[in-house]
Amino acid sequence: MNSLTDVLDGRWAGIRRDVRAQVAGTAQPDAYGLGREEHRAQVLDQLHELAATGRPHLGFPVAYGGKGDIGGTIVAFEMLGFGDLSLMVKAGVQWGLFGGAVELLGTREHHEKYLRSIMDLELPGCFAMTEYGHGSDVQNLRTTATYDPAAEEFVIHTPDASARKEYIGNAARDGRMAAVFAQLVTGGESRGVHAFLVPIRDDAGVAMPGVTIEDCGHKAGLNGVDNGRLTFDGVRVPRTALLNRYGDVAPDGTYASPIESDGRRFFTMLGTLVRGRVSVAGSAGSATKRALTIAVRYGDRRTQFERPGTDDEVVVLDYLGHQRKLLPALATTYALHFAQEELVTTLDELQRTEEPDERARRELESHAAGVKAVATWHATSTIQAAREACGGAGYLAENILPQLKADTDVFTTFEGDNTVLLQLVAKGLLTSYEQEVQDLSPLETARFVAEQVVDTVIERTSARKVIERIMDASPRRDDEDSLFDRAWQIAAFEDREEHVLDSLVKRLRKAGRDNGFEVFNSAQDHVLRAGRVHVDRIVLEAFVGAIDRCTDPGTKALLERVCDLYALANIEADRAWFLEHGRFTAQRAKAVVAAVNELCGELRPRARELVDAFAIPEQFLAAPIIAD
Amino acid sequence: MNSLTDVLDGRWAGIRRDVRAQVAGTAQPDAYGLGREEHRAQVLDQLHELAATGRPHLGFPVAYGGKGDIGGTIVAFEMLGFGDLSLMVKAGVQWGLFGGAVELLGTREHHEKYLRSIMDLELPGCFAMTEYGHGSDVQNLRTTATYDPAAEEFVIHTPDASARKEYIGNAARDGRMAAVFAQLVTGGESRGVHAFLVPIRDDAGVAMPGVTIEDCGHKAGLNGVDNGRLTFDGVRVPRTALLNRYGDVAPDGTYASPIESDGRRFFTMLGTLVRGRVSVAGSAGSATKRALTIAVRYGDRRTQFERPGTDDEVVVLDYLGHQRKLLPALATTYALHFAQEELVTTLDELQRTEEPDERARRELESHAAGVKAVATWHATSTIQAAREACGGAGYLAENILPQLKADTDVFTTFEGDNTVLLQLVAKGLLTSYEQEVQDLSPLETARFVAEQVVDTVIERTSARKVIERIMDASPRRDDEDSLFDRAWQIAAFEDREEHVLDSLVKRLRKAGRDNGFEVFNSAQDHVLRAGRVHVDRIVLEAFVGAIDRCTDPGTKALLERVCDLYALANIEADRAWFLEHGRFTAQRAKAVVAAVNELCGELRPRARELVDAFAIPEQFLAAPIIAD
Repeated sequence: MNSLTDVLDGRWAGIRRDVRAQVAGTAQPDAYGLGREEHRAQVLDQLHELAATGRPHLGFPVAYGGKGDIGGTIVAFEMLGFGDLSLMVKAGVQWGLFGGAVELLGTREHHEKYLRSIMDLELPGCFAMTEYGHGSDVQNLRTTATYDPAAEEFVIHTPDASARKEYIGNAARDGRMAAVFAQLVTGGESRGVHAFLVPIRDDAGVAMPGVTIEDCGHKAGLNGVDNGRLTFDGVRVPRTALLNRYGDVAPDGTYASPIESDGRRFFTMLGTLVRGRVSVAGSAGSATKRALTIAVRYGDRRTQFERPGTDDEVVVLDYLGHQRKLLPALATTYALHFAQEELVTTLDELQRTEEPDERARRELESHAAGVKAVATWHATSTIQAAREACGGAGYLAENILPQLKADTDVFTTFEGDNTVLLQLVAKGLLTSYEQEVQDLSPLETARFVAEQVVDTVIERTSARKVIERIMDASPRRDDEDSLFDRAWQIAAFEDREEHVLDSLVKRLRKAGRDNGFEVFNSAQDHVLRAGRVHVDRIVLEAFVGAIDRCTDPGTKALLERVCDLYALANIEADRAWFLEHGRFTAQRAKAVVAAVNELCGELRPRARELVDAFAIPEQFLAAPIIAD
Repeated sequence: MNSLTDVLDGRWAGIRRDVRAQVAGTAQPDAYGLGREEHRAQVLDQLHELAATGRPHLGFPVAYGGKGDIGGTIVAFEMLGFGDLSLMVKAGVQWGLFGGAVELLGTREHHEKYLRSIMDLELPGCFAMTEYGHGSDVQNLRTTATYDPAAEEFVIHTPDASARKEYIGNAARDGRMAAVFAQLVTGGESRGVHAFLVPIRDDAGVAMPGVTIEDCGHKAGLNGVDNGRLTFDGVRVPRTALLNRYGDVAPDGTYASPIESDGRRFFTMLGTLVRGRVSVAGSAGSATKRALTIAVRYGDRRTQFERPGTDDEVVVLDYLGHQRKLLPALATTYALHFAQEELVTTLDELQRTEEPDERARRELESHAAGVKAVATWHATSTIQAAREACGGAGYLAENILPQLKADTDVFTTFEGDNTVLLQLVAKGLLTSYEQEVQDLSPLETARFVAEQVVDTVIERTSARKVIERIMDASPRRDDEDSLFDRAWQIAAFEDREEHVLDSLVKRLRKAGRDNGFEVFNSAQDHVLRAGRVHVDRIVLEAFVGAIDRCTDPGTKALLERVCDLYALANIEADRAWFLEHGRFTAQRAKAVVAAVNELCGELRPRARELVDAFAIPEQFLAAPIIAD
């Protein structure tokens, strides 16, 4: 029994094993070198095969043939991330975004009418939120849905080119219906962004009257997904096309919502996006693991240059420089894996709750945004490093890394631009999740902060009991060995988060009526950093929690070292901050660098074991450079 | 007159203007979305058109119809870097590598027989150095060329699969002949690596007997270049196929060379690669400029989120976070541009000299290796940042950035792996360019250092007089304003280089007979850093030298600020070092961060002007996101 894999497989081990078993019996076609249309056709076929497995049904309500297993469905998406990422994204559009919008924003009528055919892929759909002129700023979308009480219809309209729906997955080729996000106007009054189900193609695949569909064409990667542009010219849909869970229009045009505040309603609706963000973070992790598995296996066999005084050539992973390219990234991948598991668990528990605690819901959204940002940037940099670590061979499509790089590249800017997401995290910290300020723009947050006494309290995650136990037991030494003391590492992360936030609050307090934007903007690097160090801390806590759950002593000891490498490499990269703020002496900072080198050497003989524990099906590792 | 462009155009302004004028009259076909074979065919057509312009002749000797303008030909390559990089690379293989090998390693007979047909592309060729098992470690290539005195022929042979020639440009489809690097064996004795001209295809395009050609297939990018694998099974070529400038075999098999030491001969031959490295650095710069031009123009018009209290939306380049993604990278691109100009000038002067000074030649090689490494890593990270700064739009092929990212990605590991190159730079510094140690492997260098008294002397570049003037005139203050004092910046770079090298020497002195590898390897991060900070310093000096040559006061003032941003962003990224080594107080380190923010704000209104000054032909900027 490989118990490292057991720890990694965690709570949804069953689904992970099912997927592995199923993949083992199938051929996995390559995507590279295919023309765009061939690739799209291949992915659509794969999507139908996936629908037939029933796995996409997992997350949907039991009443409609699903299993209500939200966590399981996200883990299944994560496993899709080991294969062609076009399939993962197309599945995400169909079942996560389109299906999710119908389920979470719609009501019973919509569920009965559509959920089964969405699950079975009889009704391929789109999630039409982003516009050319408004990507991140969803609140200011400009497509309109104007209610006509005479006809009891909504008129969906694109006022100008910058309001066209842009980059919409499933739109260019396969989608029949779209969940279109638009400003609801009734009785001459705008009621904010709502979602509407709009047919975009008939059964023959021809665009519906008034709907113009363009193809976004070739992309850097993910060319198996048919992204397109949608323009609506006075397209009429019935009143019931409104997904009316959080806002409805009566036949006479009267608007009603269970949530009074426009802003809160908007954020509640957006909150349904959380599954998408968690899924992207998970798939980014899978792609990262696949790249590291290839690079570590290659580095473990590739030799270059003779060892002086011998005829033996040095295995490249024995070079410190090579270890530094891969091993801290591997440790971070472990850390993010456990943070992801934590996120999925919380999401699963929360979405099973009828009336979830508002604070817990906001915290989940914040963690999902933050982990998505950190995990996708980590994927981009790690896959890049893995490519470079394989030299020219890493540039050949047959060795998989080029497709991984190209496909994951957009993860940093879709499902929320990472920079905007980190800002969201910071905003949440600044306002301590107070409901009344959720409507504020990030810039208005500055003013809010200026007017409040904000306590910067480190809210520990679900690992808090473990953390407290570790902290209480620690003698809090400050000698060289203490670098490897978990309590010292945790204290360093917590102290950093608290101080970064505290000093940010002080800067933002200078904001007045007239200079709010300027004050906030001149501190934007500080704002983003506050989000970042918060995420780093919750990731470390998740790792610590996972180690605590591990019972096998050997596995536990190995994970402890991997966690040391994650924590110390993170501190090393940021040691300027610790020095600038009087947290480290010069000597201590140098000791951190030396400790990272030492850990690289110590973990090098375990590197192969650490990547093999990801248990990626060999079908997805068919790169000639690592073939026997 | 746009004098910023004049400063950038520099010494080879004429060639730059010629290329711009010529491009202005032609349609530039897109490369994305083409099938591999279509793309290869398109690039071959473009290559023939390029041959017809006569520009590739520039660098070849006047006696064969060239102009002997080495610098000019490299600048022409750099300009090719604005277009489809497959064309640049294929041109580089044909005229730079293959043509360069024949010219520089061959003698009169080879020149007369081949140079004209190489120049005119009647004889398409390959540069077959890299083997599957030996990329960076050229000295240990395993292909053999065994002399048979009876037949007066060499037998070219691939002993096993790991010795096959790998990743050879022009091999899969178009090449007729290859310059094959192999271990020369005569009289039963191995004489080290030499180059041989080996026909690989007949005029009908069929592989020659004994030559097996495979296609490397699809790559991450550069799919217009036909990379292939070559295997030789006892292929016979005449004695005169040896490119015999640095080593010859008489009919009876006697070996003779004007260079006695095997190692020195090898490095002299490799020295001919310097043009290739300089050309790659230049093209990487062009691709970086193109990406920044697109991202800055887009950031200058794209709005997102309302400015609080108004209906206006904020232009994204007004956000500090966005400025930080692009402007320090823009400043570094300027710095590297001037370092490149310096490199080309030195190369041009040196290759015109009959008996170049050995020390100057080694210094050029070191600078070429170092600038290539730093410029190509800069290209990778900057193009990535530009892509992210354009969001989803940056992921669409029509907006150019995806192709730029994919094509340039391999630059960091071809024409010398960057990590190996930086190590080479460091080795050169350690051994102070002493001839007698050029034969040592990097690991043996450690032992050498241990036995010598090494003076770490900062050798200033050709800008030395300007630098000395600036240093002498400086009052050497240490107040906050001094951050913007060029003398303070230069002193910081010089001090860092000297100290890093000095402390490295101390570490390597611990190496003895038995632990040379271990000592060197455990300091490898330090070794690479020594190479890096050396390059950073010569890049800064080149920038300072260029500003000194600029006569227009307004242009000069602008360049001074760009140079400040380059220097301070570099110091900021490395401020942990300055803090750890007692060079900075915490307060000063924080002041550096604040200064970078301040410079970003100050240069933001000039950003458009700074990218427009690159004067990239608009044909290469036809991205819809920046179209009028």
